[in-house]
Parts: sequence; structure tokens; C-alpha cells
Amino acid sequence: MSKALPTRSENYSEWYNELVKRADLAENSAVRGCMVIKPYGYSIWEKMQRALDDMFKETGHQNAYFPLFIPKSYLSKEASHVEGFAKECAVVTHYRLKNDPNGKGVIVDPDAKLEEELIVRPTSETVIWSTYKNWIQSYRDLPLLINQWANVVRWEMRTRLFLRTAEFLWQEGHTAHSTSTEAIAETEQMLDIYATFAEEWMALPVLKGIKTPNERFAGAVETYCIEALMQDGKALQTGTSHFLGQNFATAFDVKFQDKDGKLEYVWGTSWGVSTRLMGALIMAHSDDSGLVLPPKLAPIQVVIVPIYKNEEQLAAITEKAEEIKKQLKKMGISVKYDNNDAYKPGYKFAEYELKGVPVRLAMGARDLENGTVEVARRDTKTKETVSLEGIAAFIGDLLDNIQESIYNKALAFREENTFRVDSFDEFNQVLDTKGGFILAHWDGTPETEEKIKEETKATIRCIPLNAQQESGVCIYSGKPSSQRVVFARAY
Amino acid sequence: MSKALPTRSENYSEWYNELVKRADLAENSAVRGCMVIKPYGYSIWEKMQRALDDMFKETGHQNAYFPLFIPKSYLSKEASHVEGFAKECAVVTHYRLKNDPNGKGVIVDPDAKLEEELIVRPTSETVIWSTYKNWIQSYRDLPLLINQWANVVRWEMRTRLFLRTAEFLWQEGHTAHSTSTEAIAETEQMLDIYATFAEEWMALPVLKGIKTPNERFAGAVETYCIEALMQDGKALQTGTSHFLGQNFATAFDVKFQDKDGKLEYVWGTSWGVSTRLMGALIMAHSDDSGLVLPPKLAPIQVVIVPIYKNEEQLAAITEKAEEIKKQLKKMGISVKYDNNDAYKPGYKFAEYELKGVPVRLAMGARDLENGTVEVARRDTKTKETVSLEGIAAFIGDLLDNIQESIYNKALAFREENTFRVDSFDEFNQVLDTKGGFILAHWDGTPETEEKIKEETKATIRCIPLNAQQESGVCIYSGKPSSQRVVFARAY
Repeated sequence: MSKALPTRSENYSEWYNELVKRADLAENSAVRGCMVIKPYGYSIWEKMQRALDDMFKETGHQNAYFPLFIPKSYLSKEASHVEGFAKECAVVTHYRLKNDPNGKGVIVDPDAKLEEELIVRPTSETVIWSTYKNWIQSYRDLPLLINQWANVVRWEMRTRLFLRTAEFLWQEGHTAHSTSTEAIAETEQMLDIYATFAEEWMALPVLKGIKTPNERFAGAVETYCIEALMQDGKALQTGTSHFLGQNFATAFDVKFQDKDGKLEYVWGTSWGVSTRLMGALIMAHSDDSGLVLPPKLAPIQVVIVPIYKNEEQLAAITEKAEEIKKQLKKMGISVKYDNNDAYKPGYKFAEYELKGVPVRLAMGARDLENGTVEVARRDTKTKETVSLEGIAAFIGDLLDNIQESIYNKALAFREENTFRVDSFDEFNQVLDTKGGFILAHWDGTPETEEKIKEETKATIRCIPLNAQQESGVCIYSGKPSSQRVVFARAY
Repeated sequence: MSKALPTRSENYSEWYNELVKRADLAENSAVRGCMVIKPYGYSIWEKMQRALDDMFKETGHQNAYFPLFIPKSYLSKEASHVEGFAKECAVVTHYRLKNDPNGKGVIVDPDAKLEEELIVRPTSETVIWSTYKNWIQSYRDLPLLINQWANVVRWEMRTRLFLRTAEFLWQEGHTAHSTSTEAIAETEQMLDIYATFAEEWMALPVLKGIKTPNERFAGAVETYCIEALMQDGKALQTGTSHFLGQNFATAFDVKFQDKDGKLEYVWGTSWGVSTRLMGALIMAHSDDSGLVLPPKLAPIQVVIVPIYKNEEQLAAITEKAEEIKKQLKKMGISVKYDNNDAYKPGYKFAEYELKGVPVRLAMGARDLENGTVEVARRDTKTKETVSLEGIAAFIGDLLDNIQESIYNKALAFREENTFRVDSFDEFNQVLDTKGGFILAHWDGTPETEEKIKEETKATIRCIPLNAQQESGVCIYSGKPSSQRVVFARAY
């Protein structure tokens, strides 16, 4: 609380890094690239987990748990999969330490070398499909709709809290189906669930689309994604849902007998969101005073701060505050009454601003006399004095209103920062002056995509779903194109 | 469902292994010692997690997340800690694979060797206390009450599903305090929470006690535990809570300034329960027909099976069943209506017996006529015909009754299998003919404890808390003793 945060306009990147630390969300650990998720940050993640888990279960999915370790040979069974993950994985080679004969602590015991190295899972398709082989014999065993909440490791060289870490937490759904149509429907359903979660819980508008082959998940036939826009004009991929075709079924020989007794390879999907969502949540809404949290994901939705000159006043305020707290709790609203005498109200105000508590109530002696309370909302930083009569219902409505208003603000921002451009000059100009989502024609070739990326650092975020068909010419090659795709620089 | 389970009396060990697999709780994976927790098993674990997590939060604990990897040097900082865990840990030495130049898939890239090896956490004291060093400066930062839900790895050579696996899931609480008294109170509080959970949720009576120095957690000053008795007369440790003294604070230099401005080392505790609880749950209550689950942890509490000869009957039964289902759901009871036409009622009965569903309702044409339903309880395998009037309340009471009754049965079993013995001959005889908990005098030395273990395979499970003081002589050495301790052969 000592120094002010760097501002977003000064240094967006530093603002983010500092905010994550000062708001007690996460910090770097002594282990390269691995983060510690602090209690306040973790409680937001828990709320995300609960909401997502409920949505998964409502659509018939069950949770299970698969091993952390993947035998090296498994990773290799799907060619493009190993290509995608081999370059950045943690490898377990030994299973024992022993005392250093030179007396310098412990060393790896050379006699405890594994016959086959184990990879700490970067994702679990291989270990899960090797298991599905035993679970699936007949069409009666399908669909298999399974999700796992787990930690995964990808040995990233440049890491950033929540956005890119060597270890991260996520959920990974892995489903198996008897037809391609059903698997595609599942892939799309899960994308819709992610979009609904982003919009309704995170107050984050997202574009739904499919990735170009270049950006596809290693081993997928088609990767669907949701993309959000951050306040610095950069895009952030917030969830992916993959149609795996029969790739993993073929690699692990998973077949089923259909109704006519014919043996067929199983169709698969996988889909995941991770603690990266925390990064998106922070970057999309927060301001120079700290976090702005949508009420549905705020660990503390309302804080009550007493303003008093003596013990007597405090006692009277406390009585009233506890009454309000009780009313709000009954409505399922989480409330903290902060009567810690060690800090002044001004300090507390700044702290709860930093932590993004959506609503702050301040109550002093005059409020008590007048039967009122000062209500401040975090998102707009506006204050008003409100009668205590019907205060609970007022706060309930206010929280709904804040949730909606944060979403609308983010949506307006995205709309203001979405540009249609028709030439490569214009493309470069918009990228360098404004950033944002750029809708432009592309000739559909990986070569052009790669060249644009090299020259501008912008990538195709997605080919939007249900977009209007529109004839045009590729901004780079001039070749014909039938649909605009979404370009952006991205996290 | 094909073959009957092995019976407990035939081969208890095989009965357990088969039951875990056939009831779809877990199975061995292709990765040595690592299990796959299947959806049905995982849904029981989720119920355990939810109940425990609520109890932790009610007592002021917050969840957080710490890295999976522990630098080798950290593990070494607490001498007895590294001694305890070095012999069975997974060691990450490299961070990349590359294509085999000989064209044989992928190999570990020798150029990607880590400067310092990383240990996959067997427990997190070291990485957490290295973090606490930065979080704790003053008495105002204490107590720090944190829990983590995580996977851990201990490279066990002989593994058994749930009971002993290389990777397992658990929670580990790690708290920091300004006084020894407060830390001990926390250690005892968490033991009480574990005991309450075991008894009220798992229907499992437990003994509370402290471990002998031999059996203490590596790095603890005192280890408290709960011990339960399985049906084969062997003990199973179901939870531990450790008073760490200032051991880890000293190892990681974690000091705080007290109210007088003096710098002191912080006092610590840690406590955990794991997926081992699943093993205890299965072993304690189940029978030769399958699982017996206490209603509070049963994923499906009530199953309704229709018995019909034609579509018309099925339609009428379905209507009634859906009505009952609705009433039960309103009471928060989880119900499955199984109208799958592919299987006969007898098959379904056996399946739900195997899966331990506490209450089964069967409804046929005659029931429909009479306004009745057949109610079967899993634990006693008794059946009765009950009027549909007030059926929901009847089932609600029945579930409470079953929960209590399973507990009472386990308690009676434990009492029948707890023996006071006063000589080593008697000790051996009871051990070999009956097993169970044996209360006997011990001279308090590690040497005697070790000799008894060598000769009988029985260990001191605990020195019971709040036990009666009673003078006697050690059954092995004949030396004086002031209290009986609890011996058993154990998992």
C-alpha cells in the first residue's frame, strides 16, 4: 500500500505485474516459472472453478483423475502432438536421492534411473486415450464425458504470473463419441459454455471462432477458441475446445463396435481453460487504483467500514453494521465488516479499492443519526448516500447493476477497438497506433499468415464463427478471400 | 458383473482389489504406481473434499496453491525431513525432449539439463516455509492459516489402489503461529476436525493419539493421528496433524517481531488427509456383495428400479417414480431413476449393491395398485413394503438411520476387536488369531518398539490421547510403564 501502482498508460505491463502482487493474487516462487497463488487470488479461482464445474455437470460431464506422469513413449504416439509438446516439458529421469559421498547434502542416486523417462503432463490426451482403450468396447459405452481438474507443466522460457507459467492449474475435458457429428456438437457446446462463463461470470465479451491450421492444438483436427480484448489493445485467448477427429483413437487403437457390429475408431474432443483466465479478468477490467472485480467472482462483494471518533460511536456503528451484514448474508452476498482499529478509514478505502471489492459501505456518526450509509461502487468510483431502509435489496440490485455495467464497459471498449481494414498499410497503421481486433481479408494460406506475423507480430486470432460471407482481397497477397478474419497482437 | 467378488474370508486382499475395480472406483494406470480415479470413485472423493473444505473454512483457513516442484536444496534444509523423503521421490532433471538422431522417436535432450534438479513434491513444508519467509514479518501477520488441495508423489515400491500409490491426491494445511501454545492448539483442533469428519461423514470410529518418535513425521516435534480398524483386524492411519515446533522456521529463517519488538522464530503445524481415506471407507464397511457407502458420501443415495412387463406398465411406474424423485430431490437427496431397458431388474439390483447405493426402491404393477413401493437398504440387505404416502420423509429418516447404523456397526466391531493384553505370549496369540487393536504396556523405548515390530509385524499405532494412567509393566521388557499404548498390524 506504500507506493501508488504504475499507471496503465505509463507502463501497462508493469501495472499488471505490480497489481497481481499488491492485490495479493499471486507471486513468483523460487522455482523458475512456477507461481504461488495466494489465498485472495485462489479464492477467485475457486469461484471460477465452482461455476464452470456446475456448468460441466449440468451438461452431463463427470470428473475423474488421471496420472501426473506420462511415459515418454505415449507422448510420441500422436506425431503432431509430440512435436507440439516435446520442446518444453519437465522430464523425470530418477526416483531417488542419496547422501552425497562428499558430504554435500543430497544428490540424485545414479542407481535409481527409470527405465523409461516420465513426462510431467503438459496436457493429458495421451494418458487418457490409453485408458479409454480399456473403457470403450461398444457404442453402449459412448459418449464418455469426462473432465479433470489438474495441474500441468509446460516449460515456458518467458513467464508471467497467470498468463504464462511453467506450472498452471486448469481443467481439461476429454470426451469420446461414436460419430463425428456428435463430437463436433460437443466441441461447439463446450465453446458455448466457455463463452457464457466469460460473459456472464467474468463480464468479459468474447469472440468465438476457429483457429487457422498454424494455430491449431497439436493433435486436433479443428481448434475452436474464444478471444478477448485487453485494455492495451492486445488479444488474449481465454479458452479452447478441440475436435480431435479420430487422431488419438487411432494413435491408441481405441475402437468401438457400432450397432451393426462393425468396429470403428472413436471420435474425440478435448477442451480446457486455465488460471490464465485470472490474467484475463485482471487485465480486462482493472484500473490505476487496482482490481475491478465483477461481483459474481468477487471473494468479498461488500465491505463495511466504520468511521468513528470513539469507542461509543464504534459500538453503535458495529451494531448497525452487523445488522446489515446479516441481511446481506441472507441474500447470499459475501460481506466483510472491517473494524480493525490498527488502520484508518482512508487506508482501508485504498486497500479495498486495490482488492477490487465491488461495493464499499462507509458508516459514521452522522449516518447513524440520519439512518443512512455511504455507498461507493468500485467500478465507477461513484458514491451516494442511501437510506438504511431497504438497504439489502438496494445492494442486491447494485451488485447486478455493477456486473452488467462492467460487461458493457468492456463490450464498448472492444467495439471501439475493432477495426475493418482493407489494405496492409492501413493494417500496420491501426496496429501501431491503436491495436485492437482487426478484421481483414486473408487469402487462407499459412504462408501469408506467417509473413504477416513476421512483419507485424500480429496473428490471426480466429476465423469468426457465423461471420458474414463477404468477397474481398487479401490485404497482404491481394488474392481473393470470402471472409474477414480477426487479427491482433496477442498475449 | 460377470463373476462374483472374492469373499472377505477367502481373501480379504483380493476382495478389496477386485471391489475397487468392479465398483468403478479406481484402476491401475500404465504408469507404475499411479492410479486412475474413475468418475464414480472421484465423485465420492469430491464429497469428502467439500465436507472437509467447509470445515477448514469454518475454522478460518484459506486455500492457496504452491509449486509442484521443490528445488533439491530446499528439501535438504531440514535434516530429518530430507532423510524421510529422499529415498522415494520423483526427480526432474531435464526440461526438453528432442528427436532421436537415430530416428527412434524422442529422447531426452542432453543440452536441456537443469542446473539444479527439481523434486516432485512429496509434501510441501519446504516450499511453503520458504514462501512464508516473505509473508511473515510481524506478529500482525500471524496466525497464517493456509490449506492446499494438491497431488503429491512418493515413489512407493509396493503400491495398492488408494492405500499406497506413487501419486495421490490430498490436502495439506500449513499454519504459522506466534506461540507454541497456539500452534499446539491448532494441531489438536485439526485432529478433532479429522476425527469428526471420519465419524460423522465416513461413519468410521477412530482413535485419537500421538505417534511414537519412531513413527513421527519427518521434521515434526509431535505427530497426532487418527487410527481406524478395518474388517480384517488391521489398522489404517486415516489422518495426521503435526506440531512442527520451530523446525521449519529455523530451517528457512522465518522470524517475526513480537509485540515487544523482539525477533522470534515462528511456530508451525501441518496436517493432511489423502485419497487413502477412500481405501478406509471401502475396507471398513463393505461386504461380499460390494460397497456399503454411508449416505452422506454416497454419490447416488437412492435408486429407483421399475419392474414391468410392458410399455404401459413402465409408463405408469415412470410417472410415479418421477414424482418420488422430485420429492426426494427437494429434500436434497440424490436419486437415480434407472429405466434402462437393456438390463433386467436382477442385474440392476446386483449392480447397485456392488456400487453401494444406500437405498433401493423397486416398483412394480402391484405396488402401483396398492400405492406402495419396496424399500431395500444396502447395509442390512433388508426389504420392506412401504406406503407411498409420506415416502419422502420415510426415506429421509431411513438415510439418517443407515448413516448411524453403519457407524454403530463399525464401532461395535472395533470394540469386539480391541483387546487388553498383559503378556507377550498373549500379545502374539491375539495378534495371530484375531488381530485388532491391542492395548498393552510398553516401556517407552524405541528399542523395544523396534523389537516388537521385528518379531510380530505389529507397530504402535498411537499413544491414545486422554487415556487413563495405569501402572503396569512392558509386555516385552518387563520394565515399568504408566500407560497402555495401541498396537496393531497396519496398512
